[in-house]
Amino acid sequence: MSTVLERPAVEPAAREPEQAEKLVIFAWSGELDKVWPTLILATTGAAMGKETTVFFTFWGLFPLVKNDVRITGENWMQRMLSMMNRGGTEHLKLSKMNFAGAGRAMMKRLAGEHGVASPQELMDMARELGVKLVPCQMTMDLLGLTRDDLIDGLEEPAGATTALAEAQGAITLFI
Amino acid sequence: MSTVLERPAVEPAAREPEQAEKLVIFAWSGELDKVWPTLILATTGAAMGKETTVFFTFWGLFPLVKNDVRITGENWMQRMLSMMNRGGTEHLKLSKMNFAGAGRAMMKRLAGEHGVASPQELMDMARELGVKLVPCQMTMDLLGLTRDDLIDGLEEPAGATTALAEAQGAITLFI
Amino acid sequence: MSTVLERPAVEPAAREPEQAEKLVIFAWSGELDKVWPTLILATTGAAMGKETTVFFTFWGLFPLVKNDVRITGENWMQRMLSMMNRGGTEHLKLSKMNFAGAGRAMMKRLAGEHGVASPQELMDMARELGVKLVPCQMTMDLLGLTRDDLIDGLEEPAGATTALAEAQGAITLFI
Repeated sequence: MSTVLERPAVEPAAREPEQAEKLVIFAWSGELDKVWPTLILATTGAAMGKETTVFFTFWGLFPLVKNDVRITGENWMQRMLSMMNRGGTEHLKLSKMNFAGAGRAMMKRLAGEHGVASPQELMDMARELGVKLVPCQMTMDLLGLTRDDLIDGLEEPAGATTALAEAQGAITLFI
Repeated sequence: MSTVLERPAVEPAAREPEQAEKLVIFAWSGELDKVWPTLILATTGAAMGKETTVFFTFWGLFPLVKNDVRITGENWMQRMLSMMNRGGTEHLKLSKMNFAGAGRAMMKRLAGEHGVASPQELMDMARELGVKLVPCQMTMDLLGLTRDDLIDGLEEPAGATTALAEAQGAITLFI
Repeated sequence: MSTVLERPAVEPAAREPEQAEKLVIFAWSGELDKVWPTLILATTGAAMGKETTVFFTFWGLFPLVKNDVRITGENWMQRMLSMMNRGGTEHLKLSKMNFAGAGRAMMKRLAGEHGVASPQELMDMARELGVKLVPCQMTMDLLGLTRDDLIDGLEEPAGATTALAEAQGAITLFI
């Protein structure tokens, strides 16, 4: 935070960890065109030295599902939902102009041609840069997702209290 | 704000009310899957002791309509809009996979089975916890909504200036 | 920021520009009902004296296209996309209930009747009030948009690093 610049007289030892520059993203959307800004902002923030946390909730949890897991859930409702909304970074759809996948394919090709990293590459980069990727426990329960359905390298599942505690003093975005 | 922790030497008397931890949500969406995080974050924030304000604007105003009010508006355009997009916490739709209500019903049943409070329960809880629920005056004018169409326990309708003044120094989310 | 109020003993000379009240909006959506809050909040923030920046990215870039430019892009994919999603403030659609333009026309008429400025008026107002309107360079590359396709009075195209640097200590909203 800029408070470091603002108070030159305060000695470094007095600085609590809370003073660090932080970025907290509430990733609610599971769609390709929202996962992109989520992960681009998260990796950029981390590369800039900000403590970066992404709290994946609701539809936002689907991109954290392993790409090779087909059906998730413990009951027919959850299983049906996962069939219609397959998880994993390789199965994301555009929020509009998806056209049964044609729009998505086009957007991915354009991205590739212009050197924009894929969601999977960005997810890997985020983990390497130390971005804290936190799955929402309540959503996991709701959708019947187990820790085994999700990719490696995530933080412990947590709830809104954890996310809001982290968000105080941070750049906060709900995507 | 964490500034309280950061500067232990400042004596309490110097702390202005602005220093309190705050959460300000701009609730733009009127859909079930967005009303949920709005109210879960708002009630969690308030329970954590944060001064919490939700500014309901545009589609976000519909969940504040009384559940037993069927048609709102002063002219045919506003009335038509309210017919197609019925207000009230009991009539919220999913932003996707709603399937004429089947998706919504499923999601509500899953929520019930996993102990997630309903939007109505969360709205009641928010009021009890002292969350400031502020309807956007401009949207009320635009949609022809009167104060009588809306539930009790709300703050006075206000505008963007009020919302932004409240947002300074707060965790801010546009949902 | 409220820090000015919090620390009356600090002399003005010690205040860095970073301490100013700031508003930074990440404008991701190009739809009428999202462009409205983006520009209403931006102009209100600027009128309140906040340093205001809007970073237009992804679909959010389309409202910055000149109203008289019909097709943009350098290859068939980009051109097809621009055909289906025409840019410019005069061609924005509602995110829902657009009904092939009927919903949009209705909403615009209601806005006119209730003294709500049009997106074009708000865009002009934003530039007059000194709101920094920043197009996202990466999105321009992705969509094949050139600087000539976009309206006048914008800042230099920039990326996520610039946007996040600006966002530190600001009210931040992802719309």
